[in-house]
Amino acid sequence: MNRFDAFNEVRRVIVVAAHPDDLECCCGGVISMLVARGVQVFSVNCTLGDIGAQNGEVGRSTLAANRLAETEDAARLLGLAGTYNLGHHDGELVPDLELRAQIACLYRLTQADTLFTFDPHWPGQIHPDHRAAGQAALDAYMPSKMPLYRPEQLAEPGADLCKLQRVFLFSTERDIDVCVDVTSVYPAKLAACQAHLSQFPRGEESLQWLKEMDGRAGQRIGVTYAEIYRTMLVW
Amino acid sequence: MNRFDAFNEVRRVIVVAAHPDDLECCCGGVISMLVARGVQVFSVNCTLGDIGAQNGEVGRSTLAANRLAETEDAARLLGLAGTYNLGHHDGELVPDLELRAQIACLYRLTQADTLFTFDPHWPGQIHPDHRAAGQAALDAYMPSKMPLYRPEQLAEPGADLCKLQRVFLFSTERDIDVCVDVTSVYPAKLAACQAHLSQFPRGEESLQWLKEMDGRAGQRIGVTYAEIYRTMLVW
Amino acid sequence: MNRFDAFNEVRRVIVVAAHPDDLECCCGGVISMLVARGVQVFSVNCTLGDIGAQNGEVGRSTLAANRLAETEDAARLLGLAGTYNLGHHDGELVPDLELRAQIACLYRLTQADTLFTFDPHWPGQIHPDHRAAGQAALDAYMPSKMPLYRPEQLAEPGADLCKLQRVFLFSTERDIDVCVDVTSVYPAKLAACQAHLSQFPRGEESLQWLKEMDGRAGQRIGVTYAEIYRTMLVW
Amino acid sequence: MNRFDAFNEVRRVIVVAAHPDDLECCCGGVISMLVARGVQVFSVNCTLGDIGAQNGEVGRSTLAANRLAETEDAARLLGLAGTYNLGHHDGELVPDLELRAQIACLYRLTQADTLFTFDPHWPGQIHPDHRAAGQAALDAYMPSKMPLYRPEQLAEPGADLCKLQRVFLFSTERDIDVCVDVTSVYPAKLAACQAHLSQFPRGEESLQWLKEMDGRAGQRIGVTYAEIYRTMLVW
Amino acid sequence: MNRFDAFNEVRRVIVVAAHPDDLECCCGGVISMLVARGVQVFSVNCTLGDIGAQNGEVGRSTLAANRLAETEDAARLLGLAGTYNLGHHDGELVPDLELRAQIACLYRLTQADTLFTFDPHWPGQIHPDHRAAGQAALDAYMPSKMPLYRPEQLAEPGADLCKLQRVFLFSTERDIDVCVDVTSVYPAKLAACQAHLSQFPRGEESLQWLKEMDGRAGQRIGVTYAEIYRTMLVW
Amino acid sequence: MNRFDAFNEVRRVIVVAAHPDDLECCCGGVISMLVARGVQVFSVNCTLGDIGAQNGEVGRSTLAANRLAETEDAARLLGLAGTYNLGHHDGELVPDLELRAQIACLYRLTQADTLFTFDPHWPGQIHPDHRAAGQAALDAYMPSKMPLYRPEQLAEPGADLCKLQRVFLFSTERDIDVCVDVTSVYPAKLAACQAHLSQFPRGEESLQWLKEMDGRAGQRIGVTYAEIYRTMLVW
Repeated sequence: MNRFDAFNEVRRVIVVAAHPDDLECCCGGVISMLVARGVQVFSVNCTLGDIGAQNGEVGRSTLAANRLAETEDAARLLGLAGTYNLGHHDGELVPDLELRAQIACLYRLTQADTLFTFDPHWPGQIHPDHRAAGQAALDAYMPSKMPLYRPEQLAEPGADLCKLQRVFLFSTERDIDVCVDVTSVYPAKLAACQAHLSQFPRGEESLQWLKEMDGRAGQRIGVTYAEIYRTMLVW
Repeated sequence: MNRFDAFNEVRRVIVVAAHPDDLECCCGGVISMLVARGVQVFSVNCTLGDIGAQNGEVGRSTLAANRLAETEDAARLLGLAGTYNLGHHDGELVPDLELRAQIACLYRLTQADTLFTFDPHWPGQIHPDHRAAGQAALDAYMPSKMPLYRPEQLAEPGADLCKLQRVFLFSTERDIDVCVDVTSVYPAKLAACQAHLSQFPRGEESLQWLKEMDGRAGQRIGVTYAEIYRTMLVW
Repeated sequence: MNRFDAFNEVRRVIVVAAHPDDLECCCGGVISMLVARGVQVFSVNCTLGDIGAQNGEVGRSTLAANRLAETEDAARLLGLAGTYNLGHHDGELVPDLELRAQIACLYRLTQADTLFTFDPHWPGQIHPDHRAAGQAALDAYMPSKMPLYRPEQLAEPGADLCKLQRVFLFSTERDIDVCVDVTSVYPAKLAACQAHLSQFPRGEESLQWLKEMDGRAGQRIGVTYAEIYRTMLVW
Repeated sequence: MNRFDAFNEVRRVIVVAAHPDDLECCCGGVISMLVARGVQVFSVNCTLGDIGAQNGEVGRSTLAANRLAETEDAARLLGLAGTYNLGHHDGELVPDLELRAQIACLYRLTQADTLFTFDPHWPGQIHPDHRAAGQAALDAYMPSKMPLYRPEQLAEPGADLCKLQRVFLFSTERDIDVCVDVTSVYPAKLAACQAHLSQFPRGEESLQWLKEMDGRAGQRIGVTYAEIYRTMLVW
Repeated sequence: MNRFDAFNEVRRVIVVAAHPDDLECCCGGVISMLVARGVQVFSVNCTLGDIGAQNGEVGRSTLAANRLAETEDAARLLGLAGTYNLGHHDGELVPDLELRAQIACLYRLTQADTLFTFDPHWPGQIHPDHRAAGQAALDAYMPSKMPLYRPEQLAEPGADLCKLQRVFLFSTERDIDVCVDVTSVYPAKLAACQAHLSQFPRGEESLQWLKEMDGRAGQRIGVTYAEIYRTMLVW
Repeated sequence: MNRFDAFNEVRRVIVVAAHPDDLECCCGGVISMLVARGVQVFSVNCTLGDIGAQNGEVGRSTLAANRLAETEDAARLLGLAGTYNLGHHDGELVPDLELRAQIACLYRLTQADTLFTFDPHWPGQIHPDHRAAGQAALDAYMPSKMPLYRPEQLAEPGADLCKLQRVFLFSTERDIDVCVDVTSVYPAKLAACQAHLSQFPRGEESLQWLKEMDGRAGQRIGVTYAEIYRTMLVW
């Protein structure tokens, strides 16, 4: 279970998330460890996160602009190789053919070998955007490997057929098979989360829930903090 | 398992169903017990039930009108606080953004603390409308709590952010964790079902299947009739 | 588990697949045995299979035309009663109301009593077209039994309400309950697969993966080759 | 031009409008004259008129409810035979297949021989809902006369194939060919308009613009008030 | 006005129509004359014509099959080089991106230099399918000339960028600028129309309306029968 | 006709175009004159212009990036107050509710009093994106003035109800009523056009067609170069 070795062959990662702070909260620990090992990590947020506020004082476009900046700040802290935002509206992400094509295009452009995304099959997933992001990310897997699918994408500089070989699903309690000790990088994970000031205005105090969640995961393998994943067999 | 105490903190309920007789058949027993305890219950039917006939003698609009009237009759018998019909066509309900917004609007208007709906994750659910209603009801949960999601809904008199705190899924055999003895209110449940004359034209005889199903549920906890639910952890 | 008797009452079968070679690879063995017993089998492919190529040398329309011909060849080898292609594009099948209506129409025209299709609920199903085909096939079940659903379909010669009584899901590892020894018909299954020259250009050598997969299934019941299914209770 | 005789053969009218006060303002005079002659008139509003407010103090659902009541009041004043509201949202009406089918259904139910609607082809029509209502009304004309189009509509009591024989387009300055003196019924027209209190809160004072517009039309034929129309040849 | 010379440079024609008998009725005369001169003519019908019946005795699929056969018969009589049917449903054609892409693909495959289609801008066009076919045909013009638009279409054998250089709009009374004497080929036009037995069951008697319409056009230029067109400047 | 005075009351302009070089080519002269007079001008391009290439050597995303940069260059030359790109794909712009809302949002944010856009009603408009941009721009006019339409837009800093009072349609030959002498600013117009290097790689030589077109317009009023517009009465 405590298998950081599950990531042994990972060289280039693409993380398909729904909102600007999902990567940091859901897999910030493992990503931090991978970057330290020299892995290139690309971040994709499907939505602008533009309803992510507890009151209506800031408008949606303004909030979106703020969160794009926070995403860049967090990416710098984590050492990501690149970030993309697909521009969809928060709370209304739909796993349709357009979203599938956008993600397929990024599989082809980044030439990632490993995908991290939300588990769309976990019945406890109450956020519709999370399910949509995960479903679209999985749905883009097969077509992006076929040359006749949206061939215009392959004309971009550096693009080639999708190279994904493995998938790690996060935000799940369904048949977990990977649990990684992230205690050593936990300060880095918290710092990246705190870069999302609009979401966590009181710093670490706003992240008490995350520490508790990662702490419960840690108890599974007898460490302070852990992150849990479900792998998926692909071909 | 026999846990009517699972409903202890319920004060205001919204039931999101697909067709005019779903509430009565799927959770009519528990609803009856809750109303008796003073709980306010609001009923939402996503479709008009306008293909619900064994022959084509009655037109679709006529059938829809008849079933709206039957819904009101059943609601009176059960003592519901209000009923809504979202006007979609039977057999063709789609869990899209429009349906999500309609349901979110009712979470905000009714200020319910508890949701009853179909389990969209039960693989045995063969009726597509049931899955669609349940999925849309769950998908509306998160956005309806956010002030920047469809703010025009919050301008209605009495509307406020969604107050849902718990979810009970019915029509499921997936990891059931609540089974309630409804024997004492079973005559009331049957009466409410029979108000749907277009569906059960021969009275209790037309409901033999329901008595058998609720009887099998009863055997789980050693009572005559029971209803079963799957709770869902939400935040 | 080794239950060919699960098919005892089958008289007319409709197979709803996504691509031209799905039927042959996923259930070609059982279909071959059923045809030998006198069962009528109708094949439905939702897509044209028009991105099914490892390079871009052949255009999509040309590939589609080739695969329609291969489908007819394979159907002749298997002795199918009829084939239908719904004309959707490969890699972009969506389980929407239009696809549902197309499939419902074929349930009504073929008067099949048994459905074979992809398991849309298996979380390991990475191909989006497979999930879409299976979902749409299940979604068409209930409405096609109702006279007020798309009544124009019932005006076709030979059409009547859907007669489906049982469902076998293939391409699944979810709660398998039927495993059938197909060793005796395996040459016929392989021959039907090889009719799809565009997919398996090097004959049996291109089908090594299939023999391995069916061999692993065989090990479950101690035979050389087997096919596995998940039945679904319907009403 | 001053041709009330253009309406000589009119017996049953259906008016397809976009918002609750369109009928009254655009053709209230002629409608009043037709009702006086014994013609049956049915009113269809495609939208709820739910953004029809100069401020945001009243919520959209509340506004919609108020306007439905105002529509009934105005219909009583004018002596209409029936009113329908298709439930679409104001400012977002789209002339799609669903709207076409809704209108076709009403052509078949009302058995009207004459259609009044917005001119969708007048380039000066700045309101998108007006163009959408007119376009959908014209688009529903041909299909509703064909028995194989949406046959379920024909099963309703009293429904039959569409009987429309003539079309009068209002809200247009394109090739006007009918101009009717409505001076004698103008008080009735104004009264019907004023029933829409939410729109014209200061009574006749709020309708100064309408009197000016109808006055300019009157100048064309030398009367005080007139309404202008464009006929459309149909077959 | 009597300008058959308007067609002097025409070498390859594509006709985009809505229903199986549109080409024959709307431009059968000119097409017949062009074929006689050696021009290659390709026919595209966007819909199956599957509501084209005065009663509901024949089902929609059956009617569609019959009309496809009638189309082939008429094409043989006229000497067309090829026919295509895009498979959309009669009475419900929508000029969306999918239809545009289908037509663009045929511009690229046929390499036609001249387009004949319905005038989508004539306000008197009451049939929505006619407007949709014409609009989609015009909308496909520009993109199909651009290499980055749907590049997969260009991979088909024989396909290349769209070569259209001129457009003739039929079924219009808007600014007509071409009127052609078709008296000499009128028997051929009538024969082609009569191949559509399902539409004109009583032969030439069923086509009285067409002879009158073409006769009225003839009067414009002092001949027995004529066809009228509106040209469109393209670049 | 030569009426630069038609622009006398213009203070803040929003130009809704389809592709990155539309503003410059269609109304670059008048815009230049207005900027010189102190008018604030905002540019909106609905599409990325990402099929705007005569060959397939550059990929679509790369082309889009290049054209965004060219847009900024041209805007600097013209002295525009701001530029927006709505991110839609070239050749596939659709005037749907989403595009309408995007444009409405910009009317509210920029507080423009004057709209420049394509004439969607000119029958000679062969480019579907031009018609779509113009139609959506007109359709956004009315709703953006209503407080209950998409109220979340009004929460942005600086946003208020739409203030548009007049519309100038370009790219039209329909009832032109404004023709402006742009000879004095023509070098500036040409320079702005040439900033779009990807479109006009050979500088002024690539713009020979534009000089001819503007020259023909000039002949209407006896000047060297002119731009022509159709005004639209709005309320």
